Amino acid sequence: MNFNDVLNSRRSVNFFDPDKRVSNELLKSVLDMAAKTPSSFNLQPWSVIVVDQESEKETLKKLAWNQPKVTEAPLTLIVLADRHGWKEGHPFVEKNFQEMIRAGSMQESQREWFKGAREGLYGATPERQLAFAAKNAGFFAMTLMLAAKSKGLDTHPMDGFDLEGVKKAFHIPDNYWVPLLIAVGYFKQGETLMPAKWRKTADELIVRFD
Amino acid sequence: MNFNDVLNSRRSVNFFDPDKRVSNELLKSVLDMAAKTPSSFNLQPWSVIVVDQESEKETLKKLAWNQPKVTEAPLTLIVLADRHGWKEGHPFVEKNFQEMIRAGSMQESQREWFKGAREGLYGATPERQLAFAAKNAGFFAMTLMLAAKSKGLDTHPMDGFDLEGVKKAFHIPDNYWVPLLIAVGYFKQGETLMPAKWRKTADELIVRFD
Repeated sequence: MNFNDVLNSRRSVNFFDPDKRVSNELLKSVLDMAAKTPSSFNLQPWSVIVVDQESEKETLKKLAWNQPKVTEAPLTLIVLADRHGWKEGHPFVEKNFQEMIRAGSMQESQREWFKGAREGLYGATPERQLAFAAKNAGFFAMTLMLAAKSKGLDTHPMDGFDLEGVKKAFHIPDNYWVPLLIAVGYFKQGETLMPAKWRKTADELIVRFD
Repeated sequence: MNFNDVLNSRRSVNFFDPDKRVSNELLKSVLDMAAKTPSSFNLQPWSVIVVDQESEKETLKKLAWNQPKVTEAPLTLIVLADRHGWKEGHPFVEKNFQEMIRAGSMQESQREWFKGAREGLYGATPERQLAFAAKNAGFFAMTLMLAAKSKGLDTHPMDGFDLEGVKKAFHIPDNYWVPLLIAVGYFKQGETLMPAKWRKTADELIVRFD
């Protein structure tokens, strides 16, 4: 599918066909595409919980302002942003370091330098830890929504949920922030898609503070 | 350009051709594409400062670990994430509300409801304000990097910079977080692009905490 067509046809869809499932294979292919997202030092501080069982969908819906799409969509992803995804000893931080050594882009002797860089940039304050996690998970979620569209799927990113309630119901450890939920499925034929919303123009986006 | 080709060929490029400029027209077309990014209640809490003058590039480079790409790339974007982009009275929040009324997706009588929803989700705590800003700016930056690639441009997202120093040098108000810089330009022919880095597999991305 053409990039522009993906970009222009990706819409936050409110009506999902509850009878059209998303196969495991298709979901995994979308996740593998989303995995190509760049991140801070390639730390990839993101994960997803796949909510596709009826009872869990009901639980999540109640925690998400009772939005019907949570149960109508075949699945909803709880996106997790790892505030500790830069810490020494974290399994994926160590994996990342070993993979860089293997690729020749870092040497074992740079372990302390790399640790210091991560701590300075991402670990220095609680707000830096959160910004690191939320930004990178934002990159990932955006690629995921576009990748899904390129595979014929529709999505809806959701903020309207009880953050603490979702963490409790799905036993999510405290190092994770939940930046959004993403409903994934197929647009229900016969429903009306609203016209695309307004957007800032390039001239509105560019600012200066001289 | 095909979506998969864009996704697979977007790489964080370290070598930019300093002699190949990016026209204003091309930059604006990329920004207009990136503007299609979805956001929380369509609030679009993002802006960019375009750094393309030699003296400003030198200033920014010094604040960005002296990374050569900041001066070699024809331009670097300072991406801004507005922690106050949900507040009643903010010009773009009001514009958003008026545009929704015009589109028929909201009514003037819902002003208080909308204000309460924004305050509850994004304004309740400083960390929620930051997560709102960083996540949405993450969405925007990701679309921008892909859109740039689809237009033949290369990019490099950068975290290695002095956050407070950049804010001071470019007179950036305190409501903004600076989640990243993005160098934009053309890959320098003759340089070697490293092989793509490892990524988590779909099976590594999916988690549960039962």
